[in-house]
Amino acid sequence: MAGKTTIKDIAKSLGISPSTVSRALSNGPGVGGDLRERIRKVASQLNYVPNSSAKSLRTRKTKTIGLIVSDIRNPFFLEFMGGVETVLFPREFKFIVCNTGEDSKKEEIYIRWLMEHGVEGIISSPYQDREGNNNGTFYKKAMNSGIHVVFYDRLIEGISNIDSVTLDNEQAIMNGVFYLKDRGHERIALCLHKRGIYTIEERYSGFKKACAILGIHPDDRWVLEDMVNYSVSLDKLRSILTLADRPTAVISTNQYLNETVVRAARELGLDIPADLSLMGFDDSSLNELIDPPVTTIRQPVVDMGKIAATLLLGRIDGDRGEQTRVVLKAELLERCSVASPAGK
Amino acid sequence: MAGKTTIKDIAKSLGISPSTVSRALSNGPGVGGDLRERIRKVASQLNYVPNSSAKSLRTRKTKTIGLIVSDIRNPFFLEFMGGVETVLFPREFKFIVCNTGEDSKKEEIYIRWLMEHGVEGIISSPYQDREGNNNGTFYKKAMNSGIHVVFYDRLIEGISNIDSVTLDNEQAIMNGVFYLKDRGHERIALCLHKRGIYTIEERYSGFKKACAILGIHPDDRWVLEDMVNYSVSLDKLRSILTLADRPTAVISTNQYLNETVVRAARELGLDIPADLSLMGFDDSSLNELIDPPVTTIRQPVVDMGKIAATLLLGRIDGDRGEQTRVVLKAELLERCSVASPAGK
Repeated sequence: MAGKTTIKDIAKSLGISPSTVSRALSNGPGVGGDLRERIRKVASQLNYVPNSSAKSLRTRKTKTIGLIVSDIRNPFFLEFMGGVETVLFPREFKFIVCNTGEDSKKEEIYIRWLMEHGVEGIISSPYQDREGNNNGTFYKKAMNSGIHVVFYDRLIEGISNIDSVTLDNEQAIMNGVFYLKDRGHERIALCLHKRGIYTIEERYSGFKKACAILGIHPDDRWVLEDMVNYSVSLDKLRSILTLADRPTAVISTNQYLNETVVRAARELGLDIPADLSLMGFDDSSLNELIDPPVTTIRQPVVDMGKIAATLLLGRIDGDRGEQTRVVLKAELLERCSVASPAGK
Repeated sequence: MAGKTTIKDIAKSLGISPSTVSRALSNGPGVGGDLRERIRKVASQLNYVPNSSAKSLRTRKTKTIGLIVSDIRNPFFLEFMGGVETVLFPREFKFIVCNTGEDSKKEEIYIRWLMEHGVEGIISSPYQDREGNNNGTFYKKAMNSGIHVVFYDRLIEGISNIDSVTLDNEQAIMNGVFYLKDRGHERIALCLHKRGIYTIEERYSGFKKACAILGIHPDDRWVLEDMVNYSVSLDKLRSILTLADRPTAVISTNQYLNETVVRAARELGLDIPADLSLMGFDDSSLNELIDPPVTTIRQPVVDMGKIAATLLLGRIDGDRGEQTRVVLKAELLERCSVASPAGK
């Protein structure tokens, strides 16, 4: 990763003195219009950050990083932040929390604020929509100005040279499908958050792969997408769980959906697991106390936070080695929400 | 609240030129040893922050505040942060999360870091031990250097002139006791986190007040303190729930303790609510799905976050009016974990 551009770099590339560059960029006297324009152009090409306060901040090591989260209400991030903090605190680093709420524009704004603020690095779970649109350009801009970036949980298209820590999402869901098939389920539904997001695409892909391997063909209508808002999610679940040929098992893909499935089943008078099996995802401490205790795919979230922070501090400390891509394994916690379907 | 001290203030109070002060404080040439010492002394008396970068940061409005939380793993803070963020983002403010883990030293370190970093304000849930020791001195130091402070959830002794938003903890627990007494309970246990902390003392006080009003006298041994670590908490609960004359109801004082009581009861084969009633505190979305759904005292946590952020921004915007102390009312959510004790 290139270091940040200084006034000296600009001066050197133009063969002029640093003080002339400085005067030109600060609108000082004694620099002609043409030269001023040329200096500005080179400064822009070299990603020079003209805000002198931001620059002084950057130079003096703010010992601060930005932590971009996609939804601050998700308990996933509470655990993740806990992991990040245990690594940062002993190194005297602080973090600014930026909640994007899956809003690409908000993510862009936060990246800009973090750059202006002079953070030394960014740990982010980036958003990407169904068409592949993402804020890659802005992450690259940050990196070009000397801010180290580590992705966690999610990756985005168009950026490959970046350290990351993610889950083996595909394998996690495949194991969930295998587990259900083992108990006799072939009529399996899948609940998904927004399509386009890395983790969602990987989990969907794992679902399709496992079904292909097993030679089972769940109804396409049973793949529920955009399960974000509670009442909409409930409607979607209701529409498939009231079908005569309804699925016998549902795979959830986050903690919020675990709860939504349990609520939907209760509302429809379906007993879990006698009438409907649930393979959950993520693990709130309360999953064990729910009626019934939820069988779920657990991510090592605290470890993910620790690794993300460790990778970032390594870069801040000067590690210029090849990119690191850590992929963690999920764990299937057997509890009581999966049984064999009636007649099996 | 006094504005931050500038080099001009120091120069004025000594009747010398600002440039002399500046040179003295930056170890520049041309200032004699005696004068240098006098300048340093005055700078210290006026709470001048000598780090020029930090100072430039403060001056240029970092649009950043510090958010001090006592335990980052508690879902309370997830909700609180969500509330804070919805108010800060539209105003282009960011926040640095500082997790103290109920460690007074860590809290002090974070206050210092926030001052050095140049935050414009601090929202904090301060720690206080049983002897009344707290970091009041450091909060005052921050305030004297021009950083606005708002307390939420907790107050500390020795600081009165500070905006705050808290719960009416005493009334909340009193209503819990009244509710239990209404259903025939007089043998009531109380689970408490660390004594000394504001909320804990208030809740304990509410418990004693309600019992006095009702003329009931729960066994002193049933007030369990220091319920922090899971296995220790479980042991303490076990010790009273296996007594021949055990309590018929337990009042919890946070979400974590709700779960601990449910787990302890299950382990001991006690049915909730047939054998033991539980009055919970705080409300995870999962409380409704637990077996049995937990009757609980809900705090308006998101509102608390919004109010804390609003109070702080008001001060940053220049509000120099009298202190605001917002006290919020809790809500008792009736579910299924309380029944009348056997024989009533």
